[in-house]
Amino acid sequence: MLFSSTLPVVHTLKQRTSWAWVEQAINHLDTILLDHSHCERKAAGVALNLMFRYPSHGKLVRQLTAIAREELEHFEQVNQFLEKRGIPLDFLSSPPYGAGLKAQIRRLEPDRLLDSLLISGLIEARSHERLGLLATHCPEPELAEFYGSLMASEARHYGIYWLLADTYFERDVFTRRLEDLAIVESELLATLHPEPRIHG
Amino acid sequence: MLFSSTLPVVHTLKQRTSWAWVEQAINHLDTILLDHSHCERKAAGVALNLMFRYPSHGKLVRQLTAIAREELEHFEQVNQFLEKRGIPLDFLSSPPYGAGLKAQIRRLEPDRLLDSLLISGLIEARSHERLGLLATHCPEPELAEFYGSLMASEARHYGIYWLLADTYFERDVFTRRLEDLAIVESELLATLHPEPRIHG
Repeated sequence: MLFSSTLPVVHTLKQRTSWAWVEQAINHLDTILLDHSHCERKAAGVALNLMFRYPSHGKLVRQLTAIAREELEHFEQVNQFLEKRGIPLDFLSSPPYGAGLKAQIRRLEPDRLLDSLLISGLIEARSHERLGLLATHCPEPELAEFYGSLMASEARHYGIYWLLADTYFERDVFTRRLEDLAIVESELLATLHPEPRIHG
Repeated sequence: MLFSSTLPVVHTLKQRTSWAWVEQAINHLDTILLDHSHCERKAAGVALNLMFRYPSHGKLVRQLTAIAREELEHFEQVNQFLEKRGIPLDFLSSPPYGAGLKAQIRRLEPDRLLDSLLISGLIEARSHERLGLLATHCPEPELAEFYGSLMASEARHYGIYWLLADTYFERDVFTRRLEDLAIVESELLATLHPEPRIHG
């Protein structure tokens, strides 16, 4: 079963998320919430690492500071849900998604910057789609509302990464590369990960 | 010339900052501001790295999330001052202070965590002292006021690192270690760095 959406970011994604993922997620809300906490922390870390790697790229630094701040705010919010549910901040193994995407980043500049921006954008686009699915299908109203409230940010973050790529690169170069990376991104999610994860 | 202060965090520091540093700083406000921007970004990075290294230490994660958010907010504020003054976000070489302190971190746990917390605390204590000196001696009122507004946060951050050490370690163990590290910290600043830096 596939889902329709009129939001532009989802068009970047080559394959929509399967119903199997939604079922798995809503049957393991606690694990998904813990994984989500790790995702928000990692997203803040990625933004900060880019700021460290390109400290003189003024626009990038400004925009990614805002993203990092927001991810940390979401991280705190997710952790409050975990605390309310009595779930400790335990380690969770990562699905192959992040490492698989990272492996696509070319080593030499300026390709490295381009790939980093586009991959971060794709992850945000996928988060937007999946949090939207949770907002719609999560049986717990308070949690569903929370997921709904985060959806818009993820879409905005996707937009920022896209605009940064547009700032530092020729549009035809980066749209071609985005196309290739989006195919890889969907392939990495083609098989449902056996453990429930946001990007599983 | 030394400065008196009744604030408790400064007592942790073994040596007060010299008048030579204050003179150098107020004569190079633009460079100090740029270096300060890098310091705030680095402080956010250090907090985030600790959160990544100890993701299951609930109290540490909660407290350092708040610190990282605040450092990013200060980073944005410093960058607004830079922008107003037409100073681009350029690279600046680091003084030996950070690397010198990092070299003191023992490799094995739990020493590694203890040293990381105490060194971060010492850096915050020093920042508190030096921003206080800038707040008092900076000839530009708007900038002086800004430094004054940041001072209290630095003291609070020092307090948080101290409390985290107190959470995870025996007090006599960590106060002894803090004593040793504070001596190294002051030694690293004993000779004025030729380039104007917050921790020069």
